[in-house]
Amino acid sequence: MNAEAHTPADCSRAEARRAQILAAASDCFRAHGFHGASISQISKSAGMSAGHIYHYFENKEAIIAAIVAHDLDELLTLSATWRAADDILEAMIDGVVEGVKENLERGKAVLKLEILAEASRNPEIAVIVRNASKCCNENITDILRLARGAKGLSTDDETITNMVEILATLFEGVLARSVRNPDLDADQFADAFQSVVRSLIAGPGFATSPPV
Amino acid sequence: MNAEAHTPADCSRAEARRAQILAAASDCFRAHGFHGASISQISKSAGMSAGHIYHYFENKEAIIAAIVAHDLDELLTLSATWRAADDILEAMIDGVVEGVKENLERGKAVLKLEILAEASRNPEIAVIVRNASKCCNENITDILRLARGAKGLSTDDETITNMVEILATLFEGVLARSVRNPDLDADQFADAFQSVVRSLIAGPGFATSPPV
Repeated sequence: MNAEAHTPADCSRAEARRAQILAAASDCFRAHGFHGASISQISKSAGMSAGHIYHYFENKEAIIAAIVAHDLDELLTLSATWRAADDILEAMIDGVVEGVKENLERGKAVLKLEILAEASRNPEIAVIVRNASKCCNENITDILRLARGAKGLSTDDETITNMVEILATLFEGVLARSVRNPDLDADQFADAFQSVVRSLIAGPGFATSPPV
Repeated sequence: MNAEAHTPADCSRAEARRAQILAAASDCFRAHGFHGASISQISKSAGMSAGHIYHYFENKEAIIAAIVAHDLDELLTLSATWRAADDILEAMIDGVVEGVKENLERGKAVLKLEILAEASRNPEIAVIVRNASKCCNENITDILRLARGAKGLSTDDETITNMVEILATLFEGVLARSVRNPDLDADQFADAFQSVVRSLIAGPGFATSPPV
């Protein structure tokens, strides 16, 4: 096939193939870990040849990059809906319950934990994860400034930076919940989590650290 | 050596050997992951034979159990000092900064993330992790009841359960910070985190969810 002559049908077929590989790879990473999952397992699970997989992804790191990029895209799409809301801050707070439940969902949580663990010892994965986090943090920083500014709440740099890091900490902490406490009452937890986020992002902000 | 005739010197030598193995195994798990680290690597890193390792630990799962038990012991020891304080709630809040910095410490964070990721697919590790979490949660539940009761703050079950789960979520979320954002200002972050914990555990509590 001539690379210059991709038709829209080629593109959507390619997209479907990529999605099929990502789903199969996600299953394999969840079940066997990043190192335990081989390209040959992934190709078997995806129902296509290893050569096909390599046509779309150079290696397992490239598959992880695509999974992380997909998650980031979802967050950016979601945050665009918050930006368009009349009350951005309330739209963000409303979104918390769904976000918590998504991170409690075992399949998602397991994959994200595996990617984090691998990032801690694989520099190539670390770069992918850090760039996505940076992009996510910049987006939330920007939207929090807008949301709080619209309500006359403090938007000083320290306050916003702290809020973004604590929000990230909270949401990431949820990933461990499904592993540590499978009996957790998801509804009660999500409500409590939402009320903590409300006091965090709709509160007065962080006073500059008092002089020591 | 007769198992019936351990002297105190034997015990402390055995303890030293166990600690030496746990330190070597922790390094190997950090560097290669649970699956990537073999008993033969651990024995090389500990400077003792594989047979020696097996004398103290049946398998890698038993090593993880000992690492998790050690962390739990540290928390229980720390919480005993809070219990003995005049103002338990303030002692807990005071302890937050050190707890955050410990979880930000890369070596610790990497090992804990690896154990969590492994727990998500290895039922034997999952049981170890869940039992430790349960014990930790029960201890914090108990101490929060005492601490808040002493100040006339609400100690209803829903409030305390929610606080314990959110505290666990926050501290566990810190583990991801060192991987995701190596440029994080640890002092500023720990201060902000402490102020979030203060409003959480010294606050009025969680209203019962409004009727739907």
